[in-house]
Amino acid sequence: MNEIMTPPPLDENVISRLRNIFGDDRLLTNCTDMMTYSYDASFETQLRPKLPQVAVIALSTEEVSECVRLANEFKIPLYPRGAATGQTGGAVPVKGGIMLDLSKMNRILEIDHRNMQAVIEPGVIQNDLNEALKSYGLRFPPDPGSANMCTVGGMVSNNSSGLRAVKYGVTRHYVLGMEVVLPTGDIIVTGGAKSKALKSVSGYDLAHLMIGSEGTLGIVTRLRLKLLPLPVTRGIVLCSFERLEDAGEAVNAVFSSGLQPSAIEIMDFNCTKAVNMMKPELNLPLDNEAILVFEVDGAKEEVTSQVNRLRKVVEKFTNYIKFSDETDECEKLWQARKLVGAAVGLLKPGGFRVYGGEDICVPISRLPETLREIHNIAERYGIICGIYGHVGDGNMHTGPVVNMNNEIEMENVQKMIDDIHELAIKMEGTTTAEHGVGIVRAKYMDVEHGPAMEVMRAIKRTLDPNNILNPGKMALPN
Amino acid sequence: MNEIMTPPPLDENVISRLRNIFGDDRLLTNCTDMMTYSYDASFETQLRPKLPQVAVIALSTEEVSECVRLANEFKIPLYPRGAATGQTGGAVPVKGGIMLDLSKMNRILEIDHRNMQAVIEPGVIQNDLNEALKSYGLRFPPDPGSANMCTVGGMVSNNSSGLRAVKYGVTRHYVLGMEVVLPTGDIIVTGGAKSKALKSVSGYDLAHLMIGSEGTLGIVTRLRLKLLPLPVTRGIVLCSFERLEDAGEAVNAVFSSGLQPSAIEIMDFNCTKAVNMMKPELNLPLDNEAILVFEVDGAKEEVTSQVNRLRKVVEKFTNYIKFSDETDECEKLWQARKLVGAAVGLLKPGGFRVYGGEDICVPISRLPETLREIHNIAERYGIICGIYGHVGDGNMHTGPVVNMNNEIEMENVQKMIDDIHELAIKMEGTTTAEHGVGIVRAKYMDVEHGPAMEVMRAIKRTLDPNNILNPGKMALPN
Repeated sequence: MNEIMTPPPLDENVISRLRNIFGDDRLLTNCTDMMTYSYDASFETQLRPKLPQVAVIALSTEEVSECVRLANEFKIPLYPRGAATGQTGGAVPVKGGIMLDLSKMNRILEIDHRNMQAVIEPGVIQNDLNEALKSYGLRFPPDPGSANMCTVGGMVSNNSSGLRAVKYGVTRHYVLGMEVVLPTGDIIVTGGAKSKALKSVSGYDLAHLMIGSEGTLGIVTRLRLKLLPLPVTRGIVLCSFERLEDAGEAVNAVFSSGLQPSAIEIMDFNCTKAVNMMKPELNLPLDNEAILVFEVDGAKEEVTSQVNRLRKVVEKFTNYIKFSDETDECEKLWQARKLVGAAVGLLKPGGFRVYGGEDICVPISRLPETLREIHNIAERYGIICGIYGHVGDGNMHTGPVVNMNNEIEMENVQKMIDDIHELAIKMEGTTTAEHGVGIVRAKYMDVEHGPAMEVMRAIKRTLDPNNILNPGKMALPN
Repeated sequence: MNEIMTPPPLDENVISRLRNIFGDDRLLTNCTDMMTYSYDASFETQLRPKLPQVAVIALSTEEVSECVRLANEFKIPLYPRGAATGQTGGAVPVKGGIMLDLSKMNRILEIDHRNMQAVIEPGVIQNDLNEALKSYGLRFPPDPGSANMCTVGGMVSNNSSGLRAVKYGVTRHYVLGMEVVLPTGDIIVTGGAKSKALKSVSGYDLAHLMIGSEGTLGIVTRLRLKLLPLPVTRGIVLCSFERLEDAGEAVNAVFSSGLQPSAIEIMDFNCTKAVNMMKPELNLPLDNEAILVFEVDGAKEEVTSQVNRLRKVVEKFTNYIKFSDETDECEKLWQARKLVGAAVGLLKPGGFRVYGGEDICVPISRLPETLREIHNIAERYGIICGIYGHVGDGNMHTGPVVNMNNEIEMENVQKMIDDIHELAIKMEGTTTAEHGVGIVRAKYMDVEHGPAMEVMRAIKRTLDPNNILNPGKMALPN
């Protein structure tokens, strides 16, 4: 089923100059290696992988710079890549060319606990960074589901977030500065060439242009990150709602009360069913439309107080409530949410959970309506799906489950994905809250942004006149 | 002393076309009106005001767009202006041309409490917005000292913050989207043309390029802002330290304990003296080098708990401590900090507090060293100054006090301002944490940013090829 186009090899002169930069060990051309670079976690690239012509593994800013300079000279597409845990084809070489693997630039260069910041290379894994920060009582808050695998450089490129964004914000909020190799090979530092300031408004903040630009404007080679103190403890309130609308009301009531939960997660009836299949002892109520899991954090006594306040606020909307401020019990309650990503696959025997249309975001007030509409769409195409997500900011993850060998289902799920994206725009939302555009959402960009797209394209042309950096993504010039 | 250059009047054809757009009532050309537009709160523009050739008062996006289109056609400098509370000359027409007054575009268009956002015009005053939000239990957190006067549009242009940035972040973190008139007159909407999503990573986030660009890339005509619930109550811990270094240690210990104060303010011995002069009954200890004022917020019982924890953490560093979780008593303690900006003027009989070099930011760890060094510089020039600021993020406000009629002092204070900026860069800090660059810090930009300046200039040239928007600022093309 997979259509794999093997691109022709690159000019020998280019290969030889790449070999001069990276040596034999870190230059790969054989077919098996190229295959490993041809996909990410997106449904699209699993169906239609794209091979690079050569892959190189960088260890330093200088190597990245020389490689980019070479690509620019010969106008060869260059694709930066971290851990390729993305779900949009963002790191996939759709036009062949050079795959620049940054995963080995993974040193934590400095943890400056007095100034609440760290300096790292882009290939550091989110979880490795947080493990290293623990002994300083610090943490890097953005926490995507892939935190055990994804690189911080990739998180910055996509402006990732995760379930605690509702209280702690997104990756953007934790980048103080960065070293960037531009499409010309030139190297700049944003946020002050030698600054370690926590706050600055000096000049255009170019970091914020780079963040979320998915490697199309420059390659991040060093990051200066802002850190926060570790929260001491956490508390959980899990509750279930007869109707989706009641869950929406409960979320509003919690915000109105002045509480700021560190996470507010929703699971629909299908997700509840799936989690119960995976872990029957959780015994979640099945006859309701939605479950909400609230998390609060802080010092022990503050958590106790917040759990009690929260419980009182949601009580009038729910017919089932469990709560705790004890670590072990919280772990158990949290499992309901933690298992859901994997559990939805169980909704269909032999089923495969597809990532596509999985990251829409709508205004909180339109969440119940949107959830119902997604189930209508799914029904129309005869596809089972579970919906869960970060209801506190309106971000929903739809998990359609299909039989990969059923051609009709495979066709239908792609139509369904399209409909979900269009629904998001219709509901005054966005096609992507935290996963990015890449190739899979490029076609919605003009509708979503209108004339602003021309400004994005103008900036791309200015910084990358030869269009060598991650071309073929985000509806930028091709 | 003031050198006022009266620029020649604009071409009659241009004036007549402006009159077609704005009518007679909202087009001003007489000298008195031009004078009121010739300065802001900066020392520089008080010394050397700059008059526009004509001022127009806009009431709609369409008017702004037509005016920009006209300026672009005739290549006339155009200066957007909010309340001109800035301290950098950012809104001052250094090259004459058209002054575009946006202060009357001050409608709150929508408060959508269910989706935790508001849509406003740029001329809305920060405090007016927050007053309107109160009955919804919501607030727009960034809180500069000028909150009673400054426009939110101006805050966005400078990426303002204030004393609660240490917990709640800066203006940037609360902008979800904006309507912008580009230097061509074209209108775009960032963050999704019709989006009301709270989170999005779709496309380059152009809002983040505009934020802090000080009106050099576009004119913001509408803002979609993220809101937070009102904190229920606040608590204060005020403590005094024999040595600056002890204050630094106390701040570190508080962060390490996991506490997240909503403000951490420092006042040096001169500020303490000045506040006591203004309000002797506060009776602040005078024999110490620094006072810290910590604020915490949340629900009543959480505030009580935080005040107690904080008190215990700082106890071992301080020889004087006062604290409260009662509103009235907190108000009293907070006065020490609130009065300081006005009080420093009292340090010298007949003195005038100068705004210049007043916004540097250094790594927290270098704060004591920097404070001492600023006092050395002041002593060298024979100038008295008080230093206070947001120590939680290293942002210091230096307040030199001079006799405006003393020519030597006036010369010396300008040298002192220069030295303070250079010190900030030497200390791995920045020349400006929240006030901006404008004209007064343009000369430090190349040193502070190095090659990144060329990228800023390239972006400016791309979006504003005729360099009509706020020219002469930020060391961009002239």
